[in-house]
Amino acid sequence: MKLRFLGTGSGVPSKERNVTAIVLDLTQERGTTWLFDCGEATQHQILKTTIRPRKIEKIFITHLHGDHIYGLPGLLSSRSFQDGTTPVTIYGPEGIEEYVIKSLEVSQTHLRYPLIFQKVDEGLLFEDDQFIVRCTKLDHGIDSFGYRIEEKNSTGELLPEKLQAIGLAPGPLYKEIKQNSTTTLPDGRIINRSDFIGPDKQGRTVTILGDTRYIGDLIDFIEESDVLVHESTFAADEEKMAYEYYHTTTRQAAHLALAGNVNTLLLTHISSRYQGEDIMDLEAEATAVFPNSKVVTDFLEWEIAQK
Amino acid sequence: MKLRFLGTGSGVPSKERNVTAIVLDLTQERGTTWLFDCGEATQHQILKTTIRPRKIEKIFITHLHGDHIYGLPGLLSSRSFQDGTTPVTIYGPEGIEEYVIKSLEVSQTHLRYPLIFQKVDEGLLFEDDQFIVRCTKLDHGIDSFGYRIEEKNSTGELLPEKLQAIGLAPGPLYKEIKQNSTTTLPDGRIINRSDFIGPDKQGRTVTILGDTRYIGDLIDFIEESDVLVHESTFAADEEKMAYEYYHTTTRQAAHLALAGNVNTLLLTHISSRYQGEDIMDLEAEATAVFPNSKVVTDFLEWEIAQK
Repeated sequence: MKLRFLGTGSGVPSKERNVTAIVLDLTQERGTTWLFDCGEATQHQILKTTIRPRKIEKIFITHLHGDHIYGLPGLLSSRSFQDGTTPVTIYGPEGIEEYVIKSLEVSQTHLRYPLIFQKVDEGLLFEDDQFIVRCTKLDHGIDSFGYRIEEKNSTGELLPEKLQAIGLAPGPLYKEIKQNSTTTLPDGRIINRSDFIGPDKQGRTVTILGDTRYIGDLIDFIEESDVLVHESTFAADEEKMAYEYYHTTTRQAAHLALAGNVNTLLLTHISSRYQGEDIMDLEAEATAVFPNSKVVTDFLEWEIAQK
Repeated sequence: MKLRFLGTGSGVPSKERNVTAIVLDLTQERGTTWLFDCGEATQHQILKTTIRPRKIEKIFITHLHGDHIYGLPGLLSSRSFQDGTTPVTIYGPEGIEEYVIKSLEVSQTHLRYPLIFQKVDEGLLFEDDQFIVRCTKLDHGIDSFGYRIEEKNSTGELLPEKLQAIGLAPGPLYKEIKQNSTTTLPDGRIINRSDFIGPDKQGRTVTILGDTRYIGDLIDFIEESDVLVHESTFAADEEKMAYEYYHTTTRQAAHLALAGNVNTLLLTHISSRYQGEDIMDLEAEATAVFPNSKVVTDFLEWEIAQK
């Protein structure tokens, strides 16, 4: 489970930072990747990585500003051209379906896979046996959402030394023992999984927020996240401007991370006014409040370790 | 007057070639640039050049396939953000206005300059005192157009030695003499411009075609062009595939250039199946028929010299 940042700039692409796109790489966990926002040239950024468009399973759109969606029609088309055949679900605010469908229709693009749209709203958005995704509204002038992705706890590792102690050598039976709460052995003995397995593996939580003003009462939503990805368009001394343009400063994001007791704060959506050494200053402003903060860059990969 | 190729690939972007966009740089002639097609990440390619989005005056769309239009909403938005205030006219097939307006509307983008749409059809598309643009239909399954841009002849250069011979030293009067067919000098003499000026400067012609099958009877439209920009998606031995996919081969494009007696043939829209040395082979196939042929690359600049 890792985050791969494809675009970390704000508004307009620059030579240093493309517009927003973040991949949650779940190759290890479910053989797919999830994409958060898709600014123009996201598919071009992907060309420089090992990410495969056909492995993209879900696309979560935080809001409809152009720097977060204009790469969508091209990515979807290329995914079809590059043998993507499995369905893609796009989660986003009202309007995203209209935009994508109109773009594909005008360009007479016929995808070779099903495209499913799900309008987002506050609350539970998605759940299966591995993950829960929850959603909250932010404060950005236009509807903007944050996504909290919770990995469920999963069965711990088998303890081979305990199994060997009762005379069971490694083999296909081990898998059966792991999958079932009780197993009848060939010799008739019935054993309980719980006696031969380590503690549950604890699920990880990643929270990715769209563009927003600082919201102090977001603590419940971000609480205890392993990683919080927060926009930080402006430096600490630009609180007024951040408020006017519906954005957040470094320091504000760090305060939220601290209050929510997250493990790591990754700051993105950096204004192109900040270059070179400015970036270190931005990071310093955040770490002064919340030490485990980092300003991310395009192509940065962030592994979220098992706890 | 020069052509600047920003995207020379076909269908899907690759590391080597972006999807289609061609700039006709008229900085010398009218202080503006014209853009032909605008595939995704055209604005990103522009970032690597000296081209200024705010100087773009006209955008001609050949057809509505995604690899020719998906960069339009982003480029138009960024042009506004980067202080573009002068109007932009977009010429293209039915549907381009709908696509652009829907994209801007969904993303709540408000441009700071007027956007004018003009639906293209066969015949005369635009004329002012400098240029004439004509249009023709091609053969691409979807409506696809070619544009013939003719620069009008312009007044020749003043001959200073002749003016000095009648006692006129260089000064503001020279400009007046050049601008008017007759001029009354301060001493009362009346002189005719035609006696003091070299021959008319002959206008240049550039013809840029959208995606198309080979069309033999396009000779009238491309005739005597200084430069013909023609797609050449496939190699000479793929005529059948080119026909099936509504594209052209190297050799077919070269035959047209020869028949139309153009000066230079520039081949673009190259399939990503051709890499490295293949490109030299493609060029050789064209030059065997029409020696003055070239396969272009992203960022190639092609000066069109005054005759």
